[in-house]
Amino acid sequence: MDKVKVGILGATGMVGQRFIQLLANHPWFEVTEVAASERSAGKKYSEVMEGRWKLTTDIPEGVRKLVVKECAPGLDCRIAFSSLDAEIAGPIEQAFAKAGYVVSSNSRNHRMEPDVPLLIPEVNAEHLGLIPVQKKNRGWQGMIITNPNCSTIHLVIALKPLMRFGLSKLLVTTMQALSGAGYPGVPSLDILDNVVPFIGGEEEKVQTETLKLLGALAKDRVVPAQIVVSAHCNRVHVSDGHTECVSVKLDANPGLAEVTKAMQEFNPLKQLGLPSSPSRVIIVKQEPNRPQPKMDRDLEHGMASVVGRIRECPLLGYKFVVLGHNTIRGAAGAAILNAELMMKKGLIS
Amino acid sequence: MDKVKVGILGATGMVGQRFIQLLANHPWFEVTEVAASERSAGKKYSEVMEGRWKLTTDIPEGVRKLVVKECAPGLDCRIAFSSLDAEIAGPIEQAFAKAGYVVSSNSRNHRMEPDVPLLIPEVNAEHLGLIPVQKKNRGWQGMIITNPNCSTIHLVIALKPLMRFGLSKLLVTTMQALSGAGYPGVPSLDILDNVVPFIGGEEEKVQTETLKLLGALAKDRVVPAQIVVSAHCNRVHVSDGHTECVSVKLDANPGLAEVTKAMQEFNPLKQLGLPSSPSRVIIVKQEPNRPQPKMDRDLEHGMASVVGRIRECPLLGYKFVVLGHNTIRGAAGAAILNAELMMKKGLIS
Amino acid sequence: MDKVKVGILGATGMVGQRFIQLLANHPWFEVTEVAASERSAGKKYSEVMEGRWKLTTDIPEGVRKLVVKECAPGLDCRIAFSSLDAEIAGPIEQAFAKAGYVVSSNSRNHRMEPDVPLLIPEVNAEHLGLIPVQKKNRGWQGMIITNPNCSTIHLVIALKPLMRFGLSKLLVTTMQALSGAGYPGVPSLDILDNVVPFIGGEEEKVQTETLKLLGALAKDRVVPAQIVVSAHCNRVHVSDGHTECVSVKLDANPGLAEVTKAMQEFNPLKQLGLPSSPSRVIIVKQEPNRPQPKMDRDLEHGMASVVGRIRECPLLGYKFVVLGHNTIRGAAGAAILNAELMMKKGLIS
Amino acid sequence: MDKVKVGILGATGMVGQRFIQLLANHPWFEVTEVAASERSAGKKYSEVMEGRWKLTTDIPEGVRKLVVKECAPGLDCRIAFSSLDAEIAGPIEQAFAKAGYVVSSNSRNHRMEPDVPLLIPEVNAEHLGLIPVQKKNRGWQGMIITNPNCSTIHLVIALKPLMRFGLSKLLVTTMQALSGAGYPGVPSLDILDNVVPFIGGEEEKVQTETLKLLGALAKDRVVPAQIVVSAHCNRVHVSDGHTECVSVKLDANPGLAEVTKAMQEFNPLKQLGLPSSPSRVIIVKQEPNRPQPKMDRDLEHGMASVVGRIRECPLLGYKFVVLGHNTIRGAAGAAILNAELMMKKGLIS
Repeated sequence: MDKVKVGILGATGMVGQRFIQLLANHPWFEVTEVAASERSAGKKYSEVMEGRWKLTTDIPEGVRKLVVKECAPGLDCRIAFSSLDAEIAGPIEQAFAKAGYVVSSNSRNHRMEPDVPLLIPEVNAEHLGLIPVQKKNRGWQGMIITNPNCSTIHLVIALKPLMRFGLSKLLVTTMQALSGAGYPGVPSLDILDNVVPFIGGEEEKVQTETLKLLGALAKDRVVPAQIVVSAHCNRVHVSDGHTECVSVKLDANPGLAEVTKAMQEFNPLKQLGLPSSPSRVIIVKQEPNRPQPKMDRDLEHGMASVVGRIRECPLLGYKFVVLGHNTIRGAAGAAILNAELMMKKGLIS
Repeated sequence: MDKVKVGILGATGMVGQRFIQLLANHPWFEVTEVAASERSAGKKYSEVMEGRWKLTTDIPEGVRKLVVKECAPGLDCRIAFSSLDAEIAGPIEQAFAKAGYVVSSNSRNHRMEPDVPLLIPEVNAEHLGLIPVQKKNRGWQGMIITNPNCSTIHLVIALKPLMRFGLSKLLVTTMQALSGAGYPGVPSLDILDNVVPFIGGEEEKVQTETLKLLGALAKDRVVPAQIVVSAHCNRVHVSDGHTECVSVKLDANPGLAEVTKAMQEFNPLKQLGLPSSPSRVIIVKQEPNRPQPKMDRDLEHGMASVVGRIRECPLLGYKFVVLGHNTIRGAAGAAILNAELMMKKGLIS
Repeated sequence: MDKVKVGILGATGMVGQRFIQLLANHPWFEVTEVAASERSAGKKYSEVMEGRWKLTTDIPEGVRKLVVKECAPGLDCRIAFSSLDAEIAGPIEQAFAKAGYVVSSNSRNHRMEPDVPLLIPEVNAEHLGLIPVQKKNRGWQGMIITNPNCSTIHLVIALKPLMRFGLSKLLVTTMQALSGAGYPGVPSLDILDNVVPFIGGEEEKVQTETLKLLGALAKDRVVPAQIVVSAHCNRVHVSDGHTECVSVKLDANPGLAEVTKAMQEFNPLKQLGLPSSPSRVIIVKQEPNRPQPKMDRDLEHGMASVVGRIRECPLLGYKFVVLGHNTIRGAAGAAILNAELMMKKGLIS
Repeated sequence: MDKVKVGILGATGMVGQRFIQLLANHPWFEVTEVAASERSAGKKYSEVMEGRWKLTTDIPEGVRKLVVKECAPGLDCRIAFSSLDAEIAGPIEQAFAKAGYVVSSNSRNHRMEPDVPLLIPEVNAEHLGLIPVQKKNRGWQGMIITNPNCSTIHLVIALKPLMRFGLSKLLVTTMQALSGAGYPGVPSLDILDNVVPFIGGEEEKVQTETLKLLGALAKDRVVPAQIVVSAHCNRVHVSDGHTECVSVKLDANPGLAEVTKAMQEFNPLKQLGLPSSPSRVIIVKQEPNRPQPKMDRDLEHGMASVVGRIRECPLLGYKFVVLGHNTIRGAAGAAILNAELMMKKGLIS
């Protein structure tokens, strides 16, 4: 089988670099286009990235020589992975969808639109049912699917296996990594020996995206889950890996052992064999002081959500910690897995 | 007036050093004794502390030359400030109280005993009413009073002005500084680029001490407050200053403006003129991204609790962030303020 | 005596903030003007600095209400302290000098010009003899004096007392703080768990400025010192305080005790009583592991150079470590001290 | 071929863990024994290491179940890799050598003994000629070989290809990682926002080991190289990877291009096919701000020395930066490579 040609919109940013890294040697996809802002366009990717490539693996050989294009339809690819800045992502992604591309976006712009799937394959694969609605509504040849924000995704993966127990209330406090703010992102003087207890727009994203992700597909729309969600979001001095302290109310009150078991066994896509699927979706650590970003963010190549400290919460019943890599499963890896699911489901031909 | 002689038990540790720093030039107290473990005893304090003094101000001249004693009664002082390790603090503090000393302790050992005041002057000064009970129960000439744990104290200061609104539920997630673990404390390899989502015993302390502090004095004991408390405690890469994300249920639902006002105006000891009292007990920051440990921990010489981000919580009604210095108001400064209150109330003669 | 009115050019940057902080309650100077880029001009300083003021002390009351002006002559002040970006400092500082202002600049632009004093009061006060030359050359009413770069200044202060021993060779390796790069400066992702062994232009500055500073005034110019200087400059994960490892050849080979004594006794301006003069210009630490930025940068309010580990160097004869605060003595404090010296010498009337 | 059985002395420490990690799936060696202090002996390795395993890869399956032994002969292995504390390594390693084991040690104790090879395979393989001398001198069945200290090794690898140009003088300033101090090692409070310009004994090690490594074998001893070496050693806030600023005098004055070429082409063991040999011994980076520990320490699986900034030094002629992983090529990987060389040379049968 020939590999499907893919392009990266926003290829020079932190998440763009992750796309390129994760797609190196991908069995189904091949990066044929890299697109970025006007001032990078026309130069070779390797040249543009001198001093800007921030990952410790080298730029893949096949991508080094690609000439950077502008972010406009005309690219030679079938799928466009987007990690564009929210300031510009909206109309660009729409233009690509209109022109027939499959846009798998990490940007926030279209996430909450009623006919756009906000997708985590293990959580709400059935929301792909919005695609025909979207195509009809918009008259597009192509389509847009989105993945959630980097702190929401690990939270929701940990919550999904608890839905059967009647999840009704939820409080989460995040301690988020610096790479979540992109590059140059957070100035070192702002975070050395410090915590910043605020990330613009983040609490709202967690509080709204969670409900859509856990909601039910009803013909042409998603009925949001009936869960009360409150989020406190903080930036801490960690390079990669968001850590989240979660308290939940489970109406069925299943007990700690059942909660643990449900998380450990959670692997609804096992049979699909998607290339980027982690073999363990949720890893439950038993050590009292785990998960930790430095130790656990790279488990399953950064595609796992790592849970620990499952215990009783005096307020809501259960509490635990969940951690995951924010630019892999929380961004680029999420969008790639979404595209893999669509391939498998025959939505990309 | 002659200054009251005070001794420091555990004078070589992190909190012991803070005691010495904060008591330099104290208008009421004079450090006349420093006591520590056997292996330090008999040497001059300046000598013992070579390479171990961790504060950026110098050892006060008057303390440098003191000979370190063992931690046993016989010290020439009226008040013994204790920051002994919990492993040994219990019997030592009791021996001092029995021998007639006023023990103002930062150690956890006696905090939850029914006849020992767990005291924050601005919060529960009336709990000093336990002192006669304690003396009678124990047959002591002296007495023990305690201050709460470093994360509890700032939380409870922020909560106290909300009690009038019917505080009934509370969830707090802490991001605690390294100095809270003492010295050598947390190995650098464990925390560089990391978060440790666990501090042994800490969540239990927050969950129990809070209820005693906010409880009512009933003749010979404290009736714990009827509040549901849940705590998540984390260690982060910050030297000093605990940051805490708090959600609260206030039955009277007073609105954000009233909550803010109650905190800003909270200053019940204003008239007493205690030397270590902050002029503002709670400082409410209006900037969206404050408080921050690096920027705000030293406000009011480390004696303030700094609150920010007062806003609505979808789950409990109100949420905010509180931050404070953990070894000043959260430890040594707390014990000193407690002793000052006792002086003012005539309990130390 | 009325205070002399001073203005700050580049008042919103890191060094500009330090100027304002250090000049609060200055006995001779009063900040009457703050100037910055066009987009800040016209607004109140307190308003412009919302979220940008990075020091832990508050903006002084008198400065909060000042309206920010553009960086052009017309300001109501006698002295203009400049911490403008090198990209724009050149012509602006010249315009001020031409218009009659005394410009005390921390910017690099004019440092190496033959008729501009590059000044450290304790090191080369006699270089003020260039001022009449400058005025004559340029036809200016005012004048420009400069202070050296933040790593050079502490190095040269430590070297000056060694000049009598025949300093002929010198190798310095710096480990420089983040605040030296300004704000936003170094992205946190670039420095967390990292060292960057390069700072653009820094090695050249150390290698050239040192020779001018230690050179002799010869009528109308400075004859550079005959010293071979080599510098390695690195950025490390420290907020404030540059640490420098220095090896020197002293032709007279005075022995370690003499070297130490020369540094300790170095205080040539003692009699002048300049307000910002440290009481100890060089502090020599005896502990084997000092100086350290966290522990020693704030000694003498950040105006001291702190030396330690004076020992034999197998290659050049002597080696030691010198450390100092880079935005106080290394920048704003340096420029203020320069202006104080000029006041004392009657150059500012 | 059956794999050679190897044991780890000091298997619970930081370097011990690296040995175990690096030896997982080693083509020639198989870990059959793990030995540590008395208090660990008798328990399963996986059990002993709960909460103490600090690497992000898991403990290899084959090692998890090994029972920890005491550090005394009787172990079922041919080679003993030692990373024992210097306080105890001396007599233990000797006992093993006497009992017939091949001891490949990372400890400092025997490095400078005249009949003990201090070995870097690419640098001084011929020093293995000391082995017969050692066996004869000591009457041992077995033998001890050592690898240099973690900062010396990368320095000397970078210097070796320059020896042909007449290396006569050398000044190195190191910025060393925290893992070099073992675990728990450096307390976080000592290094957060700090540099410690002192590491006990380190400068002496660099200054002496370098000369032995670059010395010539003369029958029964090594004649130290005639090079003047001066070292400044610093601890910085980096987890892994020592960065070193080096100035050298090369009597032949070959020019920058020749120096670069000599380093790039340096690969004297290429033909031997040792399993842990890096394919590039020295990697020369061309970017102006490299090498950096975060970006470059893992190149060649941590076995490369990475050089950058080769440029002229006003003092000595040439300067550059060298960086390498301190617990891989600088410790465990070094000892393993040494054993591989001995295997290849027929010294381990």
